[in-house]
Amino acid sequence: MDKFFNVLYKSEEKGCKARLGIIKTDHSEIETPVFMPVGTLGTVKAIEQRELYEMDAGIILGNTYHLYMRPGMEIMQSAGGLHKFMNWKNSLLTDSGGFQVFSLSKMNKIKEDGVEFSSHLDGSKHMFTPESVIETQRIIGSDIMMPLDECMPYPVDLSRAEKSIAQTFKWEKRCFEYYKNSSDRYGHRQFLFSINQGSTYKELRKRSIEELAALDFDGNAIGGLAVGEENELMYEVTDYCTDIMSEEKPRYLMGVGTPVDLLESVERGVDMFDCVMPTRNARHGRIFTTNGEVNIKGAKYKNNHGCIDEECKTYTSENFSFAYLRHLFIAGEILGSQLASIHNIGFYLQLMKNIRTAIKEKRFTEFKKEFLSKYNNK
Amino acid sequence: MDKFFNVLYKSEEKGCKARLGIIKTDHSEIETPVFMPVGTLGTVKAIEQRELYEMDAGIILGNTYHLYMRPGMEIMQSAGGLHKFMNWKNSLLTDSGGFQVFSLSKMNKIKEDGVEFSSHLDGSKHMFTPESVIETQRIIGSDIMMPLDECMPYPVDLSRAEKSIAQTFKWEKRCFEYYKNSSDRYGHRQFLFSINQGSTYKELRKRSIEELAALDFDGNAIGGLAVGEENELMYEVTDYCTDIMSEEKPRYLMGVGTPVDLLESVERGVDMFDCVMPTRNARHGRIFTTNGEVNIKGAKYKNNHGCIDEECKTYTSENFSFAYLRHLFIAGEILGSQLASIHNIGFYLQLMKNIRTAIKEKRFTEFKKEFLSKYNNK
Repeated sequence: MDKFFNVLYKSEEKGCKARLGIIKTDHSEIETPVFMPVGTLGTVKAIEQRELYEMDAGIILGNTYHLYMRPGMEIMQSAGGLHKFMNWKNSLLTDSGGFQVFSLSKMNKIKEDGVEFSSHLDGSKHMFTPESVIETQRIIGSDIMMPLDECMPYPVDLSRAEKSIAQTFKWEKRCFEYYKNSSDRYGHRQFLFSINQGSTYKELRKRSIEELAALDFDGNAIGGLAVGEENELMYEVTDYCTDIMSEEKPRYLMGVGTPVDLLESVERGVDMFDCVMPTRNARHGRIFTTNGEVNIKGAKYKNNHGCIDEECKTYTSENFSFAYLRHLFIAGEILGSQLASIHNIGFYLQLMKNIRTAIKEKRFTEFKKEFLSKYNNK
Repeated sequence: MDKFFNVLYKSEEKGCKARLGIIKTDHSEIETPVFMPVGTLGTVKAIEQRELYEMDAGIILGNTYHLYMRPGMEIMQSAGGLHKFMNWKNSLLTDSGGFQVFSLSKMNKIKEDGVEFSSHLDGSKHMFTPESVIETQRIIGSDIMMPLDECMPYPVDLSRAEKSIAQTFKWEKRCFEYYKNSSDRYGHRQFLFSINQGSTYKELRKRSIEELAALDFDGNAIGGLAVGEENELMYEVTDYCTDIMSEEKPRYLMGVGTPVDLLESVERGVDMFDCVMPTRNARHGRIFTTNGEVNIKGAKYKNNHGCIDEECKTYTSENFSFAYLRHLFIAGEILGSQLASIHNIGFYLQLMKNIRTAIKEKRFTEFKKEFLSKYNNK
């Protein structure tokens, strides 16, 4: 059986911890560093599955909280899991649902056993336990599962954070045990990552990482960043974490980020990313281009019949102009969201591909500098 | 230069006036009978241009009223016309805008010279004249243009209808003269159709058709049907019109209709159709299938993991289940509108293809019977 993760190359450029790796699931081989488009409810919003293949998306995310609510696990199970339900042939990663319980649900109450909450849809009461979130992800059939953790708000005081990482560790340990004592559901392997927490307190991150390292998770995530702290602080904590996280396992920075964040974090040794930004911004007419982010609704694009991005080739940039895209957004046409989403996801995936090539060709630092110079000087 | 329209074959089946033809514009060759998807604002809602090519859409519609409002003719002209603006390589037909002036605009006032109206968007005042609507369509660059007519409501009394067709004829004559005295804008040929009116009064339809026949329009449309009259009455008036409309020119039944309407009207000698129904219904979760129209939001599809249409092969039916589509609609996902729109347009275009094949193989009557038997017995 294929090893889940292999590091293929470590950058030797000065001050650069970037690395190349490969994740092998039973659904796809994924070159890292990788960006994973978010497909909350079993769809990467406004993009067709065949378009994701076309853009070489080897892995996408599903959100356990959302899928648990709709379509619900009865339908998910009768469909034979999310791969079949949405007809997705490549890999899937699901979060545990914990993040949404804390951010979306109107009411939530942490108990020793898990977290009680009300649905954001109809107010109905539910409970997620470490065991239940793994069981739910077993039913979803994701290739990579995440354990239940508490995602703290920012800022949070040290004693609260300390208590929280202790609770999170207990939960993750129970997730790990349930994982080891339960089986893959649909004949393909399912892997489990850990999530370290500790807010921006390095001593807590260290404790969290070390405690989790004692269990044999398949990969390790950094949780609880990109929740309001300054960018520089996020990079600093990330840098600190990757120094002590396992070298042999993939490192996943959850919920990050902007193109700049991706570059900064790859440089600090992160292998995996996910973020709603490319698709969410797209639906608001904010398009990522080589020359920076563009608000396509701006009057200055009214008569601009030129290409939106000469360097980043997507179906959108190769076929449609600033003026046409602007028109679609001004007129409220669905096609605007479709074309902007395709371009933004294409932009992110292509950026990651360029990053991987640059690492391989020992010119990551130079690539980063050139990219940022164009991206920041619109 | 290619002749615009050729009748290739006339059915000899009993009681069947169906025919096969070919329309040649400088952008595409279009086999008739044809259904033209509606792309009101320069987009067939929720469908990408490449998807229309994939489904063999040789011609789509644009709506002059809507395009005149947004993006407006200044942008349209600077783009080099609608083909370039929306990057559409096949043919375009535009209506005159008259229909929307009467149906959408809050205020409209018919004058001898044309029609004055307020924009449905911002209340601003505008005037469409026979000359201005042709000029506008010259700027849009549509392959087939339509003249200004008055579309009467239903029912309408005889004297009102009589006055209206007289006005419509004067307008169409002026359109024709302006057309003959103006030039193609972008190097490709632009054609002009007539529109006969007369509500459901056969004597008025006759007068309208005969008056218009004296001018040499490139094709002839039946306007003012499918506005509330009974289906049978619509078929009867259509049948009457096609008996006296030119044999040598394409016959276009505007704004029609359901799959059943298409079959009934092809049988009565109609060559061209357009209707918002497949795309509009799609966005409301109403999906056309071989076994009838389906309201995909229905609870009965919750756990139906089967194919939505075994016989009509589209990207949607070949890849996604009832349950997945239902989930997308219940969750309000854009992908639901995309996949339903692809299927409905695919269904209409495939129906027309099957109709053409059946006419050719001298089994239209049999095909119609079989189709209706499946379609009406869900």
